[in-house]
Amino acid sequence: MNGPQRIEINEVGPRDGLQIERALVATDDKVAFVDALSACGFARIEVTSFTSPKAIPALADAQDVMRRIARRPGVVYTALIPNIRGLERALECGTDEMNLVMSCSETHNRANLRMTRAQSFDELAAILRRAGDAGVPCNVSLSTAFGCPFDGDVPAADVMRLARQLADAGAQGITLCDTTGMAYPTQVAQLCETFQRELPRTALTVHLHNTRGMALANAIAAWQTGVTRYDAAAGGLGGCPYAPGASGNVNTEELVHMFDCMGVATGVELAPLLDIVRGLPGLVQRALTNPLLTAGPRLATHQPPAWLAERFPAA
Amino acid sequence: MNGPQRIEINEVGPRDGLQIERALVATDDKVAFVDALSACGFARIEVTSFTSPKAIPALADAQDVMRRIARRPGVVYTALIPNIRGLERALECGTDEMNLVMSCSETHNRANLRMTRAQSFDELAAILRRAGDAGVPCNVSLSTAFGCPFDGDVPAADVMRLARQLADAGAQGITLCDTTGMAYPTQVAQLCETFQRELPRTALTVHLHNTRGMALANAIAAWQTGVTRYDAAAGGLGGCPYAPGASGNVNTEELVHMFDCMGVATGVELAPLLDIVRGLPGLVQRALTNPLLTAGPRLATHQPPAWLAERFPAA
Repeated sequence: MNGPQRIEINEVGPRDGLQIERALVATDDKVAFVDALSACGFARIEVTSFTSPKAIPALADAQDVMRRIARRPGVVYTALIPNIRGLERALECGTDEMNLVMSCSETHNRANLRMTRAQSFDELAAILRRAGDAGVPCNVSLSTAFGCPFDGDVPAADVMRLARQLADAGAQGITLCDTTGMAYPTQVAQLCETFQRELPRTALTVHLHNTRGMALANAIAAWQTGVTRYDAAAGGLGGCPYAPGASGNVNTEELVHMFDCMGVATGVELAPLLDIVRGLPGLVQRALTNPLLTAGPRLATHQPPAWLAERFPAA
Repeated sequence: MNGPQRIEINEVGPRDGLQIERALVATDDKVAFVDALSACGFARIEVTSFTSPKAIPALADAQDVMRRIARRPGVVYTALIPNIRGLERALECGTDEMNLVMSCSETHNRANLRMTRAQSFDELAAILRRAGDAGVPCNVSLSTAFGCPFDGDVPAADVMRLARQLADAGAQGITLCDTTGMAYPTQVAQLCETFQRELPRTALTVHLHNTRGMALANAIAAWQTGVTRYDAAAGGLGGCPYAPGASGNVNTEELVHMFDCMGVATGVELAPLLDIVRGLPGLVQRALTNPLLTAGPRLATHQPPAWLAERFPAA
C-alpha cells in the first residue's frame, strides 16, 4: 500500500461548514476561527463565500472576514465564487485563489445553483476569463462527481468531459466532490486514476463526505492513486441541504490523524486542531459528536485498572 | 485497486455486542436476533459466549440460545470459549466452531482475562487439544493486535510469534483484532501481508473497530492484501470496557454496503440487515446513531425540491 509521502489539506470548515449552520457566527469569531486554523499548518483555507448576502446571510461579512484574518505566509486563502459580482468582491479584498462551483448532474445543479449546467458553465467560463485577466488562480469544485442524490449514478465520462472543458476554459485545479457521500473506494480510485492520466497538468483535489462511513476509505483509495490534495472540515462541519441525512465533510482531524499514523506529512499539527474542534460546539451553537476527541489519538494510552498491580505483583 | 471478489462476514453482534450492553436481553429476543441474522446470509455468526455466568450474567443463557436458534444450512455458528469448562458446555449444545481469545499485549491480557499471557496460552493450548479430540475447529481471536490501550504500540513480530505458536498448537484460524480502534491502513496492510505469507494455511480474519473513524479504510487495506474474512457487528454494537471512548465494532451494514458498492459479494442482503439494525435500539434499550440508516444506501435517491419543475419547465 503506497501513496504520496506528503499531502495538502484544504480546510473548508469556515466556508462549507459555517454556510449551512443555523447559528449566525459573529465576524470576530469567524476571524478567530480562521486564524486558529492558520496556526495549525494548513496548506489552504477556504475562508468564506462571496455569494449574495441575500442568498446566504450567514456569509454576508465575507469581505470583512477576508480583510481581517492574519495572513500566515505559506497558507493560500481561498473563497467560493458563484458569479462575476462575487469575483469582484473577492478581488477587492485580496483573495489568493478562487473556488468556483457547479454540479456534474443536471438536477443537482438546478436545485443547488438554480441554473442549468449550460448556464453554470457559461458563468464559470466568464469568471475564469476575468480571474485570468486579474492573474488570480481558479479551482472548480465539481459537485456530485461520484453520484447525485436526485439522478443517482453519474457517469465518469460526464465528469471527465466537464473537467476537461473547465480546464480548457482556464481552471488550474478541479475538485471532485462527493457531495452526499455516495463515493466508494474502487470508484474513487478509478476516477482519480483517469483524471490524473487525462488531465496531468490540472491539480486534482478530492472532497469527501462521511455520510455512509466511507470518507477515510475513499481518502485511502485516492491517496493510492497519487492524489495529494484533500478538502476536509474541522469537526466534520457541513452537509448538503438537498440530501436528507447527509452528514458533513470528512473530519479534518480524523484525516490528519490517519495520515499521521501512516507517516504521511500533512503539515497540520493535530493537537492545536483538536483544541479548535473542542471549541466548535460553542462556535456553531450545537452539540457535535466527535469520536476522535473522545478516544484521543491512537497512542494516547490509558492507565490500567487499579486492581491489576495487586493481582499481578511485580516478580 | 484490487482484492478478492467474494468475502465472508462473521456477525459478532449477538456475542461481542450483547455482552457489553447494560440491558439484559431476554433469551427469546437473542434467539430471534440470531435467526434474523441467519436469514440475511452471513457465512458465520458468533452466537454467544460460554463464559462463567458469574463473570458475564448477560450471557448465562448461552446453551439455551445455542440450542434454540434455527440452524440455517451453510451458516457456521460459533461461540467464544474462555476455558475448558466453557468448551464442554459449547460441545454439549453442538456449537459448530469455537472462538478462543487472548491478547497480544501483556497488560490488556491481564486486565481483560485476569491471567498473564503465558497462563492464557497454556489454557488455550489445552482447549485446542480437547477441541481437536472432539473434531471441532477452533479460531483464536488475538486482541490488541494493532495496539494496546495500556501498552501502546504492539510489535508486529510479537503478534506473528503468538499467531504461529497458536497455529502450531492447533488453531485453524486466527483473528487479528483491533480491539480499541488503533489500527491504521498501512499497518493493517503490512500485518495482513506478513500473516498470509508466513501462515498461508491458517485462515485469517480481521476484526476492526471504528473508534477513530478508520474501520472501513482498514477493511479496504486488508481486502487489498487478499483477506476474505471480516468480523463486524450489526449497528456497530460492542466496545471495550478498558478503553474509555472506544466505540464499537465496525458496523456490519456499512461494511456490507461498501463491498456491495464495489461489486464484491458478501452473501449478505442489505435490506433485511437494515431492518434488524432499525430494531436494535429496542433490543438493547438505548439509542444508536446510525448514519447509513438515516441516509439510506447510496442509490436511494431523493425527490428534487418541488419548486424545480416550475422554475425549469420541460422544454
